Amino acid sequence: MFSGAQISLYPMTDDFVGVIHGALGALDPYRDQMRVSTDDLSTLLVGSTDVLFPAMRDLFVAAAASGKHCVLHATVSRGCPGEPDDPICTPSSSMVSALPLEERKQAALAAVRETPMTGETVSAQFSLYVLGIDQHMDEIYGCIDFLKQSGVFHSSKNFCTKLRGEAGAVFATINEAFCRFGPTMGHVTLDITVSAHSPSPS
Amino acid sequence: MFSGAQISLYPMTDDFVGVIHGALGALDPYRDQMRVSTDDLSTLLVGSTDVLFPAMRDLFVAAAASGKHCVLHATVSRGCPGEPDDPICTPSSSMVSALPLEERKQAALAAVRETPMTGETVSAQFSLYVLGIDQHMDEIYGCIDFLKQSGVFHSSKNFCTKLRGEAGAVFATINEAFCRFGPTMGHVTLDITVSAHSPSPS
Repeated sequence: MFSGAQISLYPMTDDFVGVIHGALGALDPYRDQMRVSTDDLSTLLVGSTDVLFPAMRDLFVAAAASGKHCVLHATVSRGCPGEPDDPICTPSSSMVSALPLEERKQAALAAVRETPMTGETVSAQFSLYVLGIDQHMDEIYGCIDFLKQSGVFHSSKNFCTKLRGEAGAVFATINEAFCRFGPTMGHVTLDITVSAHSPSPS
Repeated sequence: MFSGAQISLYPMTDDFVGVIHGALGALDPYRDQMRVSTDDLSTLLVGSTDVLFPAMRDLFVAAAASGKHCVLHATVSRGCPGEPDDPICTPSSSMVSALPLEERKQAALAAVRETPMTGETVSAQFSLYVLGIDQHMDEIYGCIDFLKQSGVFHSSKNFCTKLRGEAGAVFATINEAFCRFGPTMGHVTLDITVSAHSPSPS
């Protein structure tokens, strides 16, 4: 299966280039497990979901450590038809959808609890799209039930779900929603926005 | 049918609040045709697609006129199950999918040609998701064919399509892709990123 993300980092400061360059080192521990390429709109990360979400988390937390208002946007995809299967995308641990739904919910909650703290509080919103023939509504409802128990659920908004809390738990929650629910080999995508240090009330 | 967008504007400058506030007046001509509400992550616009895309275009062009590197992100949706039908969302002109595919392609190309110039050149990328049972691959291929003839097609990327050109034509092209293809009353969403004045080569 092919998996990856188009990610963009937006530091709201005159020194946005400096903040981005200062944060890129956070990707170094993951570079041998991903392919990375950049244009003027986004950076493509191709790799397993085990690596994508921690890499996005560490990049974003490094940028947010500048104290500036920073936003990360990501378009994440797995199982896209027409993309070649790629060994670099094979996850080691998640997507165990042979397990019953309730067991997967509990595993997802445990994964969120075990995720490391980062010291940054963030707001996030995301849309999860399960594409193809079978909409798996039981899976979607199971995922929503997991989100509400995740400890970082904030609210349902039009077209997306809002989370707020410790960055580690927020990224882990989105990771688990993406990997543990829906068809194991199906085409699933995310539209994610994560924000820190916004001057607007959350 | 319900339609709307969660939009966010990211000016990469210390004065991001000033740039955003300075651009908001561009929404005034559309406000009586939309409902608007804002939190720390995005602004929800609920209205017909006839209004959503011109409103997003004018807001973004007004922000980009600052000369700063600015990005607009939008999550756009029509036909989302569970959302109430709403008269404010009824389009006056587009979504004429009773017409044959080839006629719709020609109508979409004509609409792009007729769109007003804005004076801003932008890069954009978007993902179009047709949700539900029938994937309408003929519709998708028809849409891709339209995009390649639109005059602003740049390249196919992983998970999205990149456009580059005059902002009027870019927004009109995304609008036409969203409205003229796929099931008329189906659930269709977009994940859009538009960028101006990036220091990175396009």
